[in-house]
Amino acid sequence: MRITVDDVARFLGGRVVGDGGTLLSGIAGLTEAKPGDLSFLANPKYAVHLPATKAGAVLVAEERADCPAPQIVVANPDHAFSLLIETFGPKPVHPAIGIHPSAVVGERVAIGAGARIGAGVVIGEGTVIGANAVIYPNTVVGGGCTLGDDCLLYANVSLRERCRLGHRVVVQPGAVIGSDGFGFVLVGGRHQKSPQVGIVVVEDDVEIGACACIDRARFGVTRIGAGTKIDNLVQVAHNVDVGSHCLLVAQVGIAGSTRLGNYVTLAGQVGLAGHLTIGDQATVTAQSGVSKSVPPKGVVRGSPARDYRAALAQEVGLRHLPRTEERVRQLEQRIAELERRLGSGGAPTP
Amino acid sequence: MRITVDDVARFLGGRVVGDGGTLLSGIAGLTEAKPGDLSFLANPKYAVHLPATKAGAVLVAEERADCPAPQIVVANPDHAFSLLIETFGPKPVHPAIGIHPSAVVGERVAIGAGARIGAGVVIGEGTVIGANAVIYPNTVVGGGCTLGDDCLLYANVSLRERCRLGHRVVVQPGAVIGSDGFGFVLVGGRHQKSPQVGIVVVEDDVEIGACACIDRARFGVTRIGAGTKIDNLVQVAHNVDVGSHCLLVAQVGIAGSTRLGNYVTLAGQVGLAGHLTIGDQATVTAQSGVSKSVPPKGVVRGSPARDYRAALAQEVGLRHLPRTEERVRQLEQRIAELERRLGSGGAPTP
Amino acid sequence: MRITVDDVARFLGGRVVGDGGTLLSGIAGLTEAKPGDLSFLANPKYAVHLPATKAGAVLVAEERADCPAPQIVVANPDHAFSLLIETFGPKPVHPAIGIHPSAVVGERVAIGAGARIGAGVVIGEGTVIGANAVIYPNTVVGGGCTLGDDCLLYANVSLRERCRLGHRVVVQPGAVIGSDGFGFVLVGGRHQKSPQVGIVVVEDDVEIGACACIDRARFGVTRIGAGTKIDNLVQVAHNVDVGSHCLLVAQVGIAGSTRLGNYVTLAGQVGLAGHLTIGDQATVTAQSGVSKSVPPKGVVRGSPARDYRAALAQEVGLRHLPRTEERVRQLEQRIAELERRLGSGGAPTP
Repeated sequence: MRITVDDVARFLGGRVVGDGGTLLSGIAGLTEAKPGDLSFLANPKYAVHLPATKAGAVLVAEERADCPAPQIVVANPDHAFSLLIETFGPKPVHPAIGIHPSAVVGERVAIGAGARIGAGVVIGEGTVIGANAVIYPNTVVGGGCTLGDDCLLYANVSLRERCRLGHRVVVQPGAVIGSDGFGFVLVGGRHQKSPQVGIVVVEDDVEIGACACIDRARFGVTRIGAGTKIDNLVQVAHNVDVGSHCLLVAQVGIAGSTRLGNYVTLAGQVGLAGHLTIGDQATVTAQSGVSKSVPPKGVVRGSPARDYRAALAQEVGLRHLPRTEERVRQLEQRIAELERRLGSGGAPTP
Repeated sequence: MRITVDDVARFLGGRVVGDGGTLLSGIAGLTEAKPGDLSFLANPKYAVHLPATKAGAVLVAEERADCPAPQIVVANPDHAFSLLIETFGPKPVHPAIGIHPSAVVGERVAIGAGARIGAGVVIGEGTVIGANAVIYPNTVVGGGCTLGDDCLLYANVSLRERCRLGHRVVVQPGAVIGSDGFGFVLVGGRHQKSPQVGIVVVEDDVEIGACACIDRARFGVTRIGAGTKIDNLVQVAHNVDVGSHCLLVAQVGIAGSTRLGNYVTLAGQVGLAGHLTIGDQATVTAQSGVSKSVPPKGVVRGSPARDYRAALAQEVGLRHLPRTEERVRQLEQRIAELERRLGSGGAPTP
Repeated sequence: MRITVDDVARFLGGRVVGDGGTLLSGIAGLTEAKPGDLSFLANPKYAVHLPATKAGAVLVAEERADCPAPQIVVANPDHAFSLLIETFGPKPVHPAIGIHPSAVVGERVAIGAGARIGAGVVIGEGTVIGANAVIYPNTVVGGGCTLGDDCLLYANVSLRERCRLGHRVVVQPGAVIGSDGFGFVLVGGRHQKSPQVGIVVVEDDVEIGACACIDRARFGVTRIGAGTKIDNLVQVAHNVDVGSHCLLVAQVGIAGSTRLGNYVTLAGQVGLAGHLTIGDQATVTAQSGVSKSVPPKGVVRGSPARDYRAALAQEVGLRHLPRTEERVRQLEQRIAELERRLGSGGAPTP
């Protein structure tokens, strides 16, 4: 793009502070920006970088005295910036509409209008794919699956048989949906496999990260609720039920049959034991290990996880611990001295 | 299926309590079951759900007064339920017998009778595949590999050159077997790669989870012992030796050259340092970090991991810690008061 | 190989201690070695295995009295052993030079001399691939990417559009480069996706492990610096900047916009929060969770991570904790006794 600050402000419905005629030709973060780049200040963490930015202009939520460049004041700089990126940024080049000749499509497969099936894609018998679906090369969709409209599956995804995706589901490369649950019973010294004949149901507007794994139910359904977003390398075990609009950050692991409410946030590398219930809007901080159910709006931390405030108090006590031990040693000396002076033989032997 | 409680009891060799004529048409968990569904009670955790179940009948280990539905009493309800699922549940639809025309099979490859090689599968030169093997679409098997009979490899699996799988090995989608170990030596400020020319040997009846990664040995063998089951996203580094009948739960990581005995259980997200020995039947609880070897039947917990009981005592002390600090503060006040009353100047300065 | 100890010593420029005529026919570790195998002693951890080794000869850094076999004394046994493996060990059998007929190559793709494009590989429009590149079967390279010379991509790798790899980059099977970052803004109760239009730049001599995931930047670049080595199942989030010659061990996770200096080591399963700065040569020990920036050469440990020595002192105090509580209880008894004898009513009520 090669436009002026005034052009951008007009497009965003923002107010210009400074020279509106400044030419813009790119976008970048505050610290990386060169003259001619448009940048933005959303996260207050970055305000420290504002005075030194070389950006040609900056999107801000309110006029700032410490901004060396022209400013465009908008209600939500982060949102406005995304809008600009979508409008002026690079567009994805999806596989062409239709079915690539190298794709292998099974019998009785129905594919909706406008769908794009890439090279080397394999689709199993009887699967139904909605309109405008985009499936990138070498992805494998098992038999008897259903995909809603506008689904986007990137390369090398594995969707196993009979699983169901809603509308507008996005799956990043290498993700696996419908793998067998980890269910074995020890019989005569051997781990005998419990058949895993259930499915995975992924509701509308879910996004699933790269190399994330969602196991099919032993029987019944492993469910990912509408609008939930799952990051890379997350593990969701069999019969887990994830509510709507949850955030599962990278490398989270959820053991079998645990149920999450809506708007639950699990930060990175969190582990949840099996058969738990995590209430609506609960939050688990990074690396925590949850072995008990969490009430709605609960915030837990630590491994094993506890109420957030209790966990923080514990961490403070832990930092003091070497000093606390020293204080106890000194108390023992002082009391022994007092006992000696009082001729006491009365100290209980440890 | 559409059969009666009596039919099921006869099939399982179980005893009916209640109306044996009740019709059954599906299967489900106690809480999800609708009238006409057969359910089961195995895990005592679920007994609380029994009185309210809407199931048409329930498999139980012993007759229960609080079951609202007809009961079928069997020795092992979990096992019986699996048997029913296998018999009446949906059957997998594997790729057709033979080699799909789109598969690419190298020179001097031997494929056993009844094998099913799916679309887009690539098999390298000189690889030998046993009878009845099933290989799902787009899986890549390197050259010089051997697979035993009845192996089942799902989609997008990567098995690198010269690795060996025994009989009845199951590999879930996206798993990687035989990737290079992480071995580098710092030479002149550069991490110089140590060649990784060993292999992976996976013995009979092993199952490997989705996106699990098992590195080949630097030289020699990385071994997964017979009957061991590995869950999704597990990392097994080079030259690790895993015994027989172990359970490695999701997201476990094992560093190089560590040896596990037989019947070892590593719970979810456990990490093991390198060059350790974990004894037969040892157990490591979830998220633990093990930096020392563990004796046979040892149970360890925490990061760094300790004996289970010691670790629990530590966790209890940790919960008390803020209160313990307060008790120490009060002791200091009380002893200062005594020292004052005794005219002592003798308190050692901290 | 079937050569003598003298032959090997001559090849390595080493000094023979013992019978130089001993025949060697294989290589193995000290504990696995059979007569005729050449082994080596590099890691002192293994010295305990030396007296009992059955090896036909051993590479050592200095002559040892406790070695039962002929010795070859070399400056760096580990390095010398790698050299032998590279020279005499099995050679990789890469796909043939040229483009396999089943590969699908888009328009305006440029592929360098000597490149090997395997079966089922898909390369998107306008991508440029350097000389002698090796791409294993079923790997997918998006459009507009650039790969330098001598890159090696194993099977089922996913490299998304517009990402750039330098020279000699190695990518293990199943890795994903350029997946969307995990960026969402809650708007009206829905997680609205922030467009992720940046790229990933992987510099020269980087290695990326199996099923590792490196997200593209929201805008700008997610960078992996020259010579950095990334192990399996590592997560690198959007806009992370990793310096040169870092080591990221298996299952590490790095949250968005965090910056690593050069020669940083992150041990297994470490998690880093977002927006941090980790200084040059800093080290984070296994399973640590880092929530604050780390200075150059800093060593941190624990979750939350602290200075290494402080964290160890804390762990010691933690092990003493049950005993410390008991000491406090005894102090309370002893002081109460003293207060009683002094007729004190003066104990402050808790």
